[in-house]
Amino acid sequence: MQGQLGGALGRHVLLEAYGCKAEVLDSVKGVEKTMIDAALAAGAEIREVAFHKFSPQGVSGVVVISESHLAIHTWPELGYAAIDVFTCGESVNPWDAVNYLIEMFGAESVTANEVKRGIFQGDMTVKVS
Amino acid sequence: MQGQLGGALGRHVLLEAYGCKAEVLDSVKGVEKTMIDAALAAGAEIREVAFHKFSPQGVSGVVVISESHLAIHTWPELGYAAIDVFTCGESVNPWDAVNYLIEMFGAESVTANEVKRGIFQGDMTVKVS
Repeated sequence: MQGQLGGALGRHVLLEAYGCKAEVLDSVKGVEKTMIDAALAAGAEIREVAFHKFSPQGVSGVVVISESHLAIHTWPELGYAAIDVFTCGESVNPWDAVNYLIEMFGAESVTANEVKRGIFQGDMTVKVS
Repeated sequence: MQGQLGGALGRHVLLEAYGCKAEVLDSVKGVEKTMIDAALAAGAEIREVAFHKFSPQGVSGVVVISESHLAIHTWPELGYAAIDVFTCGESVNPWDAVNYLIEMFGAESVTANEVKRGIFQGDMTVKVS
């Protein structure tokens, strides 16, 4: 149960996508479809979907998957999106979704960092003190 | 527009809560209420709420707020919850929600790290190259 997880329960990629087209980031239907398709591209199982369009611009939304979640917040006026891809277990690789999203949003520049979530050292009896 | 944001668009706290009571983490209604109340405790405006109960145990859910989102995934069998509190703007402090959640979930041990999201250096014209 080590592998890519390195003893953690999950892998959480924080993706900053810059230089995206404003009209892409301002379409709630388009952003929702892309986020769902990214989850599916990683082989995740979708459980809940909730998106919201802001006025005058911007989209926020989440896709809850069996393996955790994907989330996005867009600033079309800045060409920027803050994206999270958090997956648990060995069967899904968050980077598959991340790479899909970078391509679909046409980001000119990105930073992406993976954070391990739920690190249990030694026994699993919770008392970390 | 600097202040706590330090030139970023948002502040994202990744909270690891260990040593929580299993029954608290396994109640979808209870977890949902606590997450909503945490958003309100920080003065956030709630836009969308989506929670899911897993079988045999565990809860996943998100609260989309005008200022970004809160998310949670629980492992009742481990007494562990992975929690995200992501807020944008100066009017909401993510740590108000984080402190509320630590207290309400009765975590015995936590780690929490703040990550700045959407960092624009120099001008705001997106081309970061």
